[in-house]
Amino acid sequence: MEMLYEGKAKKIFKTDNENECIIYFKDDATAFNGLKKDEIYQKGIVNNKISSRVFEFLESKGIKTHYIKSISDREMLVKAVEILPIEVIVRNISAGSMCKRLGIDEGIEFEKPVLEFSYKNDELKDPLINDDHAMALKLATKEEIDYIKNQAIEINNVLKEFFKNLNLKLVDFKLEFGKTLNGEIILADEVSPDTCRFWDINTNEKLDKDRFRRDLGNVIEGYKEVLNRMG
Amino acid sequence: MEMLYEGKAKKIFKTDNENECIIYFKDDATAFNGLKKDEIYQKGIVNNKISSRVFEFLESKGIKTHYIKSISDREMLVKAVEILPIEVIVRNISAGSMCKRLGIDEGIEFEKPVLEFSYKNDELKDPLINDDHAMALKLATKEEIDYIKNQAIEINNVLKEFFKNLNLKLVDFKLEFGKTLNGEIILADEVSPDTCRFWDINTNEKLDKDRFRRDLGNVIEGYKEVLNRMG
Ligand SMILES: Nc1ncnc2c1ncn2[C@@H]1O[C@H](COP(=O)(O)OP(=O)(O)OP(=O)(O)O)[C@@H](O)[C@H]1O
Ligand SMILES: Nc1ncnc2c1ncn2[C@@H]1O[C@H](COP(=O)(O)OP(=O)(O)OP(=O)(O)O)[C@@H](O)[C@H]1O
Ligand SMILES: [Mg+2]
Ligand SMILES: [Mg+2]
Repeated sequence: MEMLYEGKAKKIFKTDNENECIIYFKDDATAFNGLKKDEIYQKGIVNNKISSRVFEFLESKGIKTHYIKSISDREMLVKAVEILPIEVIVRNISAGSMCKRLGIDEGIEFEKPVLEFSYKNDELKDPLINDDHAMALKLATKEEIDYIKNQAIEINNVLKEFFKNLNLKLVDFKLEFGKTLNGEIILADEVSPDTCRFWDINTNEKLDKDRFRRDLGNVIEGYKEVLNRMG
Repeated sequence: MEMLYEGKAKKIFKTDNENECIIYFKDDATAFNGLKKDEIYQKGIVNNKISSRVFEFLESKGIKTHYIKSISDREMLVKAVEILPIEVIVRNISAGSMCKRLGIDEGIEFEKPVLEFSYKNDELKDPLINDDHAMALKLATKEEIDYIKNQAIEINNVLKEFFKNLNLKLVDFKLEFGKTLNGEIILADEVSPDTCRFWDINTNEKLDKDRFRRDLGNVIEGYKEVLNRMG
């Protein structure tokens, strides 16, 4: 199979069908714009499973995603898309970079989810942007921006409930959207402990990539705990 | 007179009238969040004059400002306000920090002005924020945000025309809004070569604080040229 792209956590392969591609989930982990790097044994397998479950759930709730099916431990068949160069971050509770930038404590529950865009550009370290920047840089049109914001809010509503049933707080998460060959915008990439913060609803124990970022230990055990709760 | 606040470029004094205060324009100049510092002989006088003319013009166009009158070379009588902790930046042409953050060249004319908010907080270095951040931090309500955005656009339309008549391109500028004792939101602070970028319409010569930031020399001469063109 021809590899289209190798990212920090996944590889993307062509298939015979130009409308579909295969995502291969690696064990590689990076943080702080690639400054911190390691391998987390079996992370790729766990993230493929978690992402598949999440996409299946989202589809069952009427959200359009790139997910077609899981085809092996580490491989997911998805719709091929052109990724919009905007990362959409949804925050229900303050954590991570936002706390540092704005001088606020971690753990503040927002009355209303906070949406952020960042410009998907490794060289520039994915800078925070607003809607006007996205339009000035021609990353998306006004209509596309409104659409992905609405989708992000809807996905947040659905996922908050989904994870609450697993005794997990959905603290924040990053989404990527892409455009299919026929111009439809759908949710792409992954939804996993690499891209979401999950805190145990009772203990606030972190069950996500912050275990890696902050050297909290037992990284894969946290990811597996999230998967186990999915049954 | 009792001094209420000493900033990097101005001092604010109480008056006998609780609705009014006096702004004293200093010669001090700072850049890069206070890292670069100097005195620019007569800058305070020139900025008081330029700001006064601009506020008078804006008032003549129906924009509500804090300006009452100029009372001496360096002093302006203004309405006392509680400043909203949001700096509103309007960009017509790319320049400065935006170019660095987004990896774009200086001098690109935007189809539509780009609005930015930054959180007025010296310790955090006035970080860029979006509307959701402003609301989450309770810096302003949704209604206030919409109002100051509309005002900023309106002010831009009016000022672009004003400066065009002086053969100046209004590249970008920073505004501060404040709330009067009776709850009205009005334009406050200053509008001067310290807070705007002005380029000569024919030569693109910089006639603003970038002369100081970039050690281009003849800083006060640039400021005086802007004032002279006001006649
Ligand atoms: N359905 C899809 N079709 C095409 N590309 C996709 C699809 N889903 C995800 N991608 C892209 O696959 C790439 C590899 O993913 P990975 O997470 O490894 O990237 P990354 O190194 O994190 O880089 P980035 O910072 O761009 O996300 C990403 O650029 C992602 O946007
Ligand atoms: N009408 C007004 N009433 C009260 N305060 C005002 C008024 N207009 C401006 N100010 C405030 O006066 C202060 C002094 O101005 P100066 O430009 O020196 O501040 P600064 O050091 O640049 O700090 P900042 O980064 O807060 O602007 C600023 O905090 C400004 O917001
Ligand atoms: Mg990625
Ligand atoms: Mg100031």
